[in-house]
Amino acid sequence: MRAVDIIIDKRNGKELSRDALRFLIHGYVAGEIPDYQIAAWAMAVFFQGMSPGEIAALTEVMLQSGGLMDLSGIAGPFVDKHSTGGVGDKTSLIVAPLIASLGIKDPMMSGRALGHTGGTLDKLEAIPGYRTALQAQEFREILGKTGYAMTGQTKDMVPADRLLYALRDVSGTVESIPLITASILAKKVAEGADALVLDVKYGSGAFMKEPEEAEKLARSLVNTGAMMGKKIIALLTDMNEPLGTMVGNFLEVEESLDCLEGNGPADLMEVSLELAARMAVLGAKAADAVEGRLVCEAALVSGKPRQLFLENIRCQGGDPKQFLEMRGKYRSDCSAEIKASGGPYISRIDAWKIGHAGILLGVGRNRTEDPVSPTAGVQFHKKRGDRIVPGERIMTIWAADEASLAAAIPQLEDAVEYAEIPPAPRKLVLKEIS
Amino acid sequence: MRAVDIIIDKRNGKELSRDALRFLIHGYVAGEIPDYQIAAWAMAVFFQGMSPGEIAALTEVMLQSGGLMDLSGIAGPFVDKHSTGGVGDKTSLIVAPLIASLGIKDPMMSGRALGHTGGTLDKLEAIPGYRTALQAQEFREILGKTGYAMTGQTKDMVPADRLLYALRDVSGTVESIPLITASILAKKVAEGADALVLDVKYGSGAFMKEPEEAEKLARSLVNTGAMMGKKIIALLTDMNEPLGTMVGNFLEVEESLDCLEGNGPADLMEVSLELAARMAVLGAKAADAVEGRLVCEAALVSGKPRQLFLENIRCQGGDPKQFLEMRGKYRSDCSAEIKASGGPYISRIDAWKIGHAGILLGVGRNRTEDPVSPTAGVQFHKKRGDRIVPGERIMTIWAADEASLAAAIPQLEDAVEYAEIPPAPRKLVLKEIS
Repeated sequence: MRAVDIIIDKRNGKELSRDALRFLIHGYVAGEIPDYQIAAWAMAVFFQGMSPGEIAALTEVMLQSGGLMDLSGIAGPFVDKHSTGGVGDKTSLIVAPLIASLGIKDPMMSGRALGHTGGTLDKLEAIPGYRTALQAQEFREILGKTGYAMTGQTKDMVPADRLLYALRDVSGTVESIPLITASILAKKVAEGADALVLDVKYGSGAFMKEPEEAEKLARSLVNTGAMMGKKIIALLTDMNEPLGTMVGNFLEVEESLDCLEGNGPADLMEVSLELAARMAVLGAKAADAVEGRLVCEAALVSGKPRQLFLENIRCQGGDPKQFLEMRGKYRSDCSAEIKASGGPYISRIDAWKIGHAGILLGVGRNRTEDPVSPTAGVQFHKKRGDRIVPGERIMTIWAADEASLAAAIPQLEDAVEYAEIPPAPRKLVLKEIS
Repeated sequence: MRAVDIIIDKRNGKELSRDALRFLIHGYVAGEIPDYQIAAWAMAVFFQGMSPGEIAALTEVMLQSGGLMDLSGIAGPFVDKHSTGGVGDKTSLIVAPLIASLGIKDPMMSGRALGHTGGTLDKLEAIPGYRTALQAQEFREILGKTGYAMTGQTKDMVPADRLLYALRDVSGTVESIPLITASILAKKVAEGADALVLDVKYGSGAFMKEPEEAEKLARSLVNTGAMMGKKIIALLTDMNEPLGTMVGNFLEVEESLDCLEGNGPADLMEVSLELAARMAVLGAKAADAVEGRLVCEAALVSGKPRQLFLENIRCQGGDPKQFLEMRGKYRSDCSAEIKASGGPYISRIDAWKIGHAGILLGVGRNRTEDPVSPTAGVQFHKKRGDRIVPGERIMTIWAADEASLAAAIPQLEDAVEYAEIPPAPRKLVLKEIS
């Protein structure tokens, strides 16, 4: 078997065998197949696509490139969620304790902020002392104790994905549905989840700009999951506007706690509850999404999710008491306000522009190795549809330093659009695919 | 400028600017842009193609990656020919002395055998002492003296092509008309030719299997040449059958001399004269191809091309007398005959199968670094259309060793097809594109 022949087969539109994919991916991880052949193959996949069977085979050979999380000895069910990434999207921090309170375990492995999208690990690390690089044993213990644990991908899990993703990022082959599907599923299967709810976002602040593209990805994920014996429900959700009123690392942890206390913003609560409702269904705690939502709403009222959230902070190295004291205060000194320059209605706050301004403020990063600020961010006092008067405060912003603040201000101002009449209400959850 | 953005632009079907192509290619040659980015870009080019302006810009930036042959001080015109490669194609060895005898200079830089196709340098090196790695000064001297000189590409000429071709070979991106066009033209412009005749072959033994593909490449070459101020005439010629009666390194040098002595096989003479006629036109020695052919036929009769051929051997390190004495005798000891297994007519001798059997015999090679044999090869006693009786000798073959001989015999037998009636005559030169 020669890598070049496999590349040419894919280039010519042929379906690759599991053996060919294994040869390619395992050879790449072993350093026997050079990155230029994998880059050429990835570009051929971009153009020619992959059959459902090929995607499942690719996912499996990627999975076999490393170890799996061993959850034996812990009572399930194990249900996780994954988001394709957005701006102000802190739903993971809300749904994990929420479904844990129902008796479902969430073995959650998350990623970091990249580009305009935020990262769960960076948010959690804004809590002083919080550790996101858990050893397997500790991960299992915390999962058993509080019902959920939050960690980053370990080095020996799906090394093929780490290598392949880094290569796709620099070779213009990120936007390929088969490759995205295998990347997401290999990681999620490796962490040990039995079932999965996917938040596939579309819109300016999402990876997929159009609902049609997001739907294609969602269907690919659901179908491939089914071929691998994993139950998956995907929701297509709107990411044209930032989710909630906070964009920033510590800010988003705070807002997650607001939600668990029943004080969350409507859009964020809506998406979180819709995701949690499906997780409740997959974890057999509800017959359908409607019942799942009722179960989740009742759980919130009980206060148990909030308690698990604080307990998880303690288990992972933070101090819940200190955290509660920092609430509303842990902000960068470098601050400014963005005031309305039009009116009388805000017709749009562009998620992509907010996300990019967030990189300048210190919320996100352009390159994986760049640091982020825990205390930088944006708080929205007004959002889409709100009526305002010119000069009224729309956002408060915090930056790592004065220069970053100055650079972000015009971008943040530019993100707000005004209109004479209120905008039409938007549908946050467009479609369920399962 | 970032390489990944250029890759994505091409992937998305955008036309790349000259600056973007220069950034990519010169960065690659300088070792600043890694091969995985170039491989991904080449695959994107394979799928998205290039506009005529892009191909010309790519050719120019490739050309600028190294030095040009300086032919100043030598009287022109400088006209060269290039073939896309075939089996038994020794026309370069015939047309160079032929048009040199008309007063046209041919500064010919050739390549080596690869896969089933032969290489001019390997054929010439079958002449004991013949040197094909000429220094620039020596190349100019020989060109000035005998009217043509034969050399390989020097290290500092079009380094971009050497790197890019090697990468395309292992990344499944060889078969891209824009990349082939730029590769051929950059080398040919670098060697100093003012005008060029291209032998674009189609058929089983050619790189392009269908005349339509060959025509696309021919048009791309002619158009790009015109944009670069080079006059190009392309002939589409048939490479379904081996050209002439000899396939092998020394064997083909011998057959070239046969042609120059007026004893060449009809198919080889026809293609050689049609190519030389166009070279005569481009070198202003004839008004049109018909006159060009008459001029070339007259030159052959004069014996001057044969004299230049022998003089070139002497200039490049060989011994013409010794060469003439070796004629008909310089063969490997390891020999066999292939006899007819059908009849009464040979309907086809498949060039691709002969070329592949040639690799086994030692005529060609699978990898650039493999050696070839000077004395291995195939001599055809019968060809397509000939009437034979079962058991009659069709080929004599010579191999580097007995094992190679045994391996090649079934392939050579398999290359011959038989029929009850004679096959329709084939058109050797299908079309002229200029």
